Amino acid sequence: METIVQHAKTQGFVYQGSEIYGGLANTWDYGPLGVELKNNIKKAWWQKFVQESPYNVGLDSAILMNSKVWEASGHIGGFSDPLMDCKNCKTRHRADKLIEEYSRGQVNAEVMTNDEMEAYIKENNIPCPNCGASDFTGIRDFNLMFKTFQGVTDDAKNAVYLRPETAQGIFVNFKNVQRTTRKKVPFGIAQIGKSFRNEITPGNFIFRTREFEQMELEFFCEPGTDLEWHSYWREYCHQFLLKLGVHDENLRLRDHEADELSHYSNATTDIEYKFPFGDGFGELWGIADRTDYDLKAHMEHSKQSMEYLDPMTNKKYVPYCIEPSVGVDRLLLAVFCDSYDVETLADETTREVLHLHPYLAPIKAAILPLTKKLSAEAEALYAELSKHFMIEYDESGAIGKRYRRQDAIGTPFCITVDFDTLEDNSVTIRHRDSMEQERIAIDELVVYLQKEITL
Amino acid sequence: METIVQHAKTQGFVYQGSEIYGGLANTWDYGPLGVELKNNIKKAWWQKFVQESPYNVGLDSAILMNSKVWEASGHIGGFSDPLMDCKNCKTRHRADKLIEEYSRGQVNAEVMTNDEMEAYIKENNIPCPNCGASDFTGIRDFNLMFKTFQGVTDDAKNAVYLRPETAQGIFVNFKNVQRTTRKKVPFGIAQIGKSFRNEITPGNFIFRTREFEQMELEFFCEPGTDLEWHSYWREYCHQFLLKLGVHDENLRLRDHEADELSHYSNATTDIEYKFPFGDGFGELWGIADRTDYDLKAHMEHSKQSMEYLDPMTNKKYVPYCIEPSVGVDRLLLAVFCDSYDVETLADETTREVLHLHPYLAPIKAAILPLTKKLSAEAEALYAELSKHFMIEYDESGAIGKRYRRQDAIGTPFCITVDFDTLEDNSVTIRHRDSMEQERIAIDELVVYLQKEITL
Repeated sequence: METIVQHAKTQGFVYQGSEIYGGLANTWDYGPLGVELKNNIKKAWWQKFVQESPYNVGLDSAILMNSKVWEASGHIGGFSDPLMDCKNCKTRHRADKLIEEYSRGQVNAEVMTNDEMEAYIKENNIPCPNCGASDFTGIRDFNLMFKTFQGVTDDAKNAVYLRPETAQGIFVNFKNVQRTTRKKVPFGIAQIGKSFRNEITPGNFIFRTREFEQMELEFFCEPGTDLEWHSYWREYCHQFLLKLGVHDENLRLRDHEADELSHYSNATTDIEYKFPFGDGFGELWGIADRTDYDLKAHMEHSKQSMEYLDPMTNKKYVPYCIEPSVGVDRLLLAVFCDSYDVETLADETTREVLHLHPYLAPIKAAILPLTKKLSAEAEALYAELSKHFMIEYDESGAIGKRYRRQDAIGTPFCITVDFDTLEDNSVTIRHRDSMEQERIAIDELVVYLQKEITL
Repeated sequence: METIVQHAKTQGFVYQGSEIYGGLANTWDYGPLGVELKNNIKKAWWQKFVQESPYNVGLDSAILMNSKVWEASGHIGGFSDPLMDCKNCKTRHRADKLIEEYSRGQVNAEVMTNDEMEAYIKENNIPCPNCGASDFTGIRDFNLMFKTFQGVTDDAKNAVYLRPETAQGIFVNFKNVQRTTRKKVPFGIAQIGKSFRNEITPGNFIFRTREFEQMELEFFCEPGTDLEWHSYWREYCHQFLLKLGVHDENLRLRDHEADELSHYSNATTDIEYKFPFGDGFGELWGIADRTDYDLKAHMEHSKQSMEYLDPMTNKKYVPYCIEPSVGVDRLLLAVFCDSYDVETLADETTREVLHLHPYLAPIKAAILPLTKKLSAEAEALYAELSKHFMIEYDESGAIGKRYRRQDAIGTPFCITVDFDTLEDNSVTIRHRDSMEQERIAIDELVVYLQKEITL
């Protein structure tokens, strides 16, 4: 993991946030290559979940919402961490994490009440991870939403929260979207956007951060068809990951047991990825059958109908909802880890390489004039290709060294402009993975690359 | 303006935020068509300012930053509105706005101190716009940044702010980006992202909102070359707007007079658009020569060097910076207003139409089977084209009515599948603006559309 983080920083994928001021705990900035990779991941998701899907449409709702949304969704009442302080060293800890670490995952603290957790911690004399004492305060629930104030006075009625998930922006717009698009159930609403959670224990690089970006789909269907659709989207998400080039042996589909399910959920599957830290597998994508829990909650709190009238059957119902939800940053980390490799070559030297799917690669092709005498031709080619793709131009250093740099950032194609180019109007394409080379006419380059980067 | 807002709402471009709960003052959600239009605007900017520019690279920095950033940038000390309360009716007002409205824009309050504003208001007995009394409190500076707390305690040291601009995320990463990309000055760093300002008087639909999205470029150059580069980017931004199809007669380039310039600025130009509200022209794009003000401020506060060593001349200097900054929401509003039209047709009926550039249009083509008997062929075509473009499928209602709906949302091409299609494997393309039709082979459609939507 250390190597991968170092690689991401050195190559300009990810920098520490506010680094010149000593950082700000667990914030990260995406550099020139990181932002391209991130944009390509979002683009891939939008293409497969919105553009190519006959069912789904997109949405972009505001981060700041009326607080009544969070009352209805239960986030104001229940979205909190159970915290306790060590009376000896004054450090603060999550009670559920204390139990899970102490029991090595044998006890599932998520289903315990605060009283049960306090009792378990006392009975087992669980020690403070910081000082070793076993003397904690009671549990205090700490809400995970960031709170701020809108308007010119600090009155409580102006308190607003940074959304902890994009999903609620979709639920409250269910009727708006259905009415304006005239979509018929089943249909889905997809959204990409930032969310914020004031986690007490963020960490593992960009795996868990307080500010993060989500890609969420809420798919509305007729009650009774929900398990079928859950299975459909479970498979769809899995296939999407494989299409991005993620190795199947690093993925695990974990269906929740009955006692692990939320009280409103009929089925939930976590797609987990084998990250190179912690216990191995970490959650990547949650696909939850949330029944009519969310729409009914908003119906009750807003007094607005969330019912749908099926024009074919004349049946009226509140739709059930399947929610596949994945974090952009986490998916980026999985893709980054999955494609990173250090290879030993035939001549015993090694190369760092990112085997990214060409669709995801930040730079699609690098244009490398063999000598600076060929700059004019190479720059003209750059100008032409960059109308279509992210292209890098590099004329400094030995060609082998330039190949290595492109390998390290995942560029699938290196295009060498040489003296023959002046004669035959062709260039040499060198492939990142096989390192093989082929000759191709400049006129065919755009179509060639377009085909290669298709998802 | 009313008509345009109504059109945006009815067609699913923009909804009121948190609408089912009575909204949240001045927040807006982008619906299925709005999010596509917004994404296309961002894509266009990224293509022209990052992908096609040999100078610029991208960045995506965090919204939450170390508070020292805002101390250095002057936002904690100086980014505030001068507010005063009416002692009679207790409403709160911006002193500068009171003066500007009272003097009908003849007095520029932006250059006045608080004392000068208080004096002017008293001397002229400016009345409260709400109750007409002329009895105000003194001015209190109200900071425009949203403040929240990170971590598990509410101590002041954990106070963080939602960024009021994306620019500072670029400045603090100047060295990181330069080092990892090995770019040579002149070069620029571009970023798209959300910013937040707790404005006392937001309004005019999505023109001024508390939560908004910015597209900012910080272009670093050698001191002394800055006016030249300012002129370069001024022209570049203007041409970009024309390329998007914005009518030049609705644009005005306003160069700031010497007494209007910030103390650190060598030149500033506002590109203004003639919005259908207020006094006419409103600011769309600011292009400011900020000299070395920002990098020097961060150098001083962080004690980190922001100097650049020119490898050709061996000169060492802190680069000057040109900043073209435009709001996504505001540009979207300009494009929307600029392309909206109600046309009277030859048969005396009218149609609502959005003459959007095909690159920006939310839906590139609508597939319309002449009758439901042709669904199978039409759906197959949908599946094929939607791999490449946002496509809509509509088989309900009379063909004329379906054309009208597509006109109203700006779809440049309607593709009719008819019984001849089964014989000749061709379709009819109907053009939005000319309403003319032509016959085209299905095999040629992808290339045809790709060419038409090029920016």
